Amino acid sequence: MYTIEEISKIIKGNIVGDRKIIIKGVCDVEIGRHGYITYLKNEKYKKYLLNNQASVVVVDNNFDNSNLDKTIIKVKNPSLSFIKLLSFFKSKKINKKTGIDKNSHISNDAIVGNNVYIGSHVIIEKNACIADDVNIFPGSYIGENTIIGKETVIHPNVTIYDNVTIGKRCKINAGTVVGSDGFGIVTQKGKNFDIPHIGSVLIEDDVSIGSNCSIDRGTFNNTVIGKNTKLDNLIQIGHNVNIGKGCMLSAQVGIAGSSIIGNNVVIAGQSGIIDHISIGDNSVIAVKSCVYKTIPKNSFVSGIPAKEHKIRLKEEAIIKKLPTLYKEIKKNN
Amino acid sequence: MYTIEEISKIIKGNIVGDRKIIIKGVCDVEIGRHGYITYLKNEKYKKYLLNNQASVVVVDNNFDNSNLDKTIIKVKNPSLSFIKLLSFFKSKKINKKTGIDKNSHISNDAIVGNNVYIGSHVIIEKNACIADDVNIFPGSYIGENTIIGKETVIHPNVTIYDNVTIGKRCKINAGTVVGSDGFGIVTQKGKNFDIPHIGSVLIEDDVSIGSNCSIDRGTFNNTVIGKNTKLDNLIQIGHNVNIGKGCMLSAQVGIAGSSIIGNNVVIAGQSGIIDHISIGDNSVIAVKSCVYKTIPKNSFVSGIPAKEHKIRLKEEAIIKKLPTLYKEIKKNN
Amino acid sequence: MYTIEEISKIIKGNIVGDRKIIIKGVCDVEIGRHGYITYLKNEKYKKYLLNNQASVVVVDNNFDNSNLDKTIIKVKNPSLSFIKLLSFFKSKKINKKTGIDKNSHISNDAIVGNNVYIGSHVIIEKNACIADDVNIFPGSYIGENTIIGKETVIHPNVTIYDNVTIGKRCKINAGTVVGSDGFGIVTQKGKNFDIPHIGSVLIEDDVSIGSNCSIDRGTFNNTVIGKNTKLDNLIQIGHNVNIGKGCMLSAQVGIAGSSIIGNNVVIAGQSGIIDHISIGDNSVIAVKSCVYKTIPKNSFVSGIPAKEHKIRLKEEAIIKKLPTLYKEIKKNN
Repeated sequence: MYTIEEISKIIKGNIVGDRKIIIKGVCDVEIGRHGYITYLKNEKYKKYLLNNQASVVVVDNNFDNSNLDKTIIKVKNPSLSFIKLLSFFKSKKINKKTGIDKNSHISNDAIVGNNVYIGSHVIIEKNACIADDVNIFPGSYIGENTIIGKETVIHPNVTIYDNVTIGKRCKINAGTVVGSDGFGIVTQKGKNFDIPHIGSVLIEDDVSIGSNCSIDRGTFNNTVIGKNTKLDNLIQIGHNVNIGKGCMLSAQVGIAGSSIIGNNVVIAGQSGIIDHISIGDNSVIAVKSCVYKTIPKNSFVSGIPAKEHKIRLKEEAIIKKLPTLYKEIKKNN
Repeated sequence: MYTIEEISKIIKGNIVGDRKIIIKGVCDVEIGRHGYITYLKNEKYKKYLLNNQASVVVVDNNFDNSNLDKTIIKVKNPSLSFIKLLSFFKSKKINKKTGIDKNSHISNDAIVGNNVYIGSHVIIEKNACIADDVNIFPGSYIGENTIIGKETVIHPNVTIYDNVTIGKRCKINAGTVVGSDGFGIVTQKGKNFDIPHIGSVLIEDDVSIGSNCSIDRGTFNNTVIGKNTKLDNLIQIGHNVNIGKGCMLSAQVGIAGSSIIGNNVVIAGQSGIIDHISIGDNSVIAVKSCVYKTIPKNSFVSGIPAKEHKIRLKEEAIIKKLPTLYKEIKKNN
Repeated sequence: MYTIEEISKIIKGNIVGDRKIIIKGVCDVEIGRHGYITYLKNEKYKKYLLNNQASVVVVDNNFDNSNLDKTIIKVKNPSLSFIKLLSFFKSKKINKKTGIDKNSHISNDAIVGNNVYIGSHVIIEKNACIADDVNIFPGSYIGENTIIGKETVIHPNVTIYDNVTIGKRCKINAGTVVGSDGFGIVTQKGKNFDIPHIGSVLIEDDVSIGSNCSIDRGTFNNTVIGKNTKLDNLIQIGHNVNIGKGCMLSAQVGIAGSSIIGNNVVIAGQSGIIDHISIGDNSVIAVKSCVYKTIPKNSFVSGIPAKEHKIRLKEEAIIKKLPTLYKEIKKNN
């Protein structure tokens, strides 16, 4: 339980209203909870505030509270401020992990920085390099020569193969695999041979990766995931793929080998990108699409095969009318 | 090897025919195997019985065996009885696991019930609570404050994050991850920030979850999987999702954030449900569909975008005729 | 760094050109790298050679080098030769793992062959049998009575349940699960019961499996993956599925229960095969298709529902014209 003054300090906000409120935690904006604090993400959510049970709302500095009988905290950016509050309350729910567990197994030839947490049953192979302030949770495997950048968090049962480079402040969730050989097969006289992959994976700074993702290493060069890109769960990234900066990939997306994704691309859930194509910067690929050819910057595509979303909507509208249309034509022809 | 009398006792059935048969195991109804026992799930499978090699068949009490020259065991419910026999023979194939392995690592502040099995390299963090008769297989991770209900089985290499609640008699297969942060991103001036999730996951009693599933925790509140719901493998359950009771979700299904699935809903393989929508009770979603909008109770939808299955079939029938129709129209217009 | 003579010996080739070149490693054919060696997979890649930075190219014995000012090594089969070179250089990048780690846990009743590597935190249960020259990486679990054939490599954090048989020279990548119970449910009076599976999984020789795959055991009999079949990542193989020899399944493919896949079948990424159907030998299933019915040998199908690819292309061509056509019809009718 925290005073509103304490909470306000964390987000450097200005309290308007009752300064004696005690806050037990954070809550959503739709229903809320008495004694808790919520936030107004944007104007669209304003309608929820009237019946919301929350005791305090974090709002934009320009917020007009004349119609709202609730204590508010004014900040520059409510969403970012609220991330701070969520982090604060989350840190209260579980103990900070510290130290190197005696049941972890770290090669004598590995380099381990300061202030790291390495959990039980973690394996760190030869010449791996674990930077300062890294957290590696139980059961994870770090291969030979692999580098984990500062402040990165590796959750339980993650596997990172050899020679992989992971940047600073990354998060990799449980069960994710980084650096297995890509799916490259040579078929000769009906027999399939695996192509050994000597490239690797480069994950740049501030990348977050969900759980149970599979990110393959490159054949000769690196598979790359650019700075500040965010991946949801169960995502497939094929060998030699190059993803730009600031992208968002939702769950169960698959990107086939050697394709290039620009910067700030958004790919919705269960979509697929075939191999050897490019997706231009700032493009949006709608849910469960399949992109078969290179698309330019700022595209918005949907469907299987993916095409410009507007065109697809037109086609779908007519497909709906087909049964009626069919009868009409049959009558007249 | 068991006498038919022994087997009949397990399922409380009535033997009609040769009581001296020795049974080596269970077999399928399509081909069967001499010396083994099979069962008649329903009338549709009756055709297989004539040529089936099985020595004994478990049938419904009302079964008319006048045309069948085989020993039968009559029971009230052949399918449920056969589950008992499968369990019986399965338990003979592998040793029952017991005790707490000395190479597991259980926090002193965790609570562990009676008659539990905790395998090698299991990690159980602070204040976790493991109820009586729970089985946790090697390599699994149980986070802080997490509760595992009575008789639940956690297979190898499962990761359950902190503060999760799992009910009684649940099964969670290998590689599944429960409770990682959901995919919530705030984008400010082209930079993506992860939203910390302080909600958790509640899995009610009698839920089974396949292997390599990803179930995210809620942002403020719980992601919920209702009592007796069954999940296949490689399934994505987004943050804040609420799944009702008695549902069945096949492999590679994905449910995006905050969607609500009613009771007894069936979702076939590789289907997707977008975020913030509802699926009414008893609805069926056909294989590889994508549901874009709320659908009422008892719906049967298919396709991308999903629509009433009957309507889709009509549209597809006409699409098939389009090439011929096109020529016709071009000729006449 | 190796002389071209040393490299040439590995692949039993004939050098044409400068025999004094020193080679640092292997590179791609598109861009290449000075001091490195590349290869010409087939004629289609010939265009890249002129500007390629590589110092040496592995080519077919029949290659005409009159227009190429580069040292070449002639071999019978460049692709297979290059696999040898990739293996050679890959083996230089990481240390060969050997021996049985003292932090592995091997049942006294397990049989372990000669020259095996068993990493830290590997669990090998009772009566499991690990053949000669097997490599099992840290964190993997091998269930009771399970057999791992000669020279097979199991990467980290893999789970193989009890009674599974894995052939010789297989590769199973991190996070993959083999042998969990299939998704078989009996519903009685609104309650779902899991069917215990007493069949198992048979993986034949020379099979490679990617990361985070889920392969379920059979109900009564085995789920089978045939010799020399190759699976990419995040693939679902349902209970009782039987996959033939020499198949290739790309990432995120799902095959539902009891379906039969012939020999040399190619299934592209994110495709689904429903349950209880057959796919004939040598068939190709295009990316993101869904096959709803049995298809004969040598089929090439695409789409949802999958149909002959040529037919689908025709339909799609007309769907594109529909908006224009619709206007026309409305005008004339």
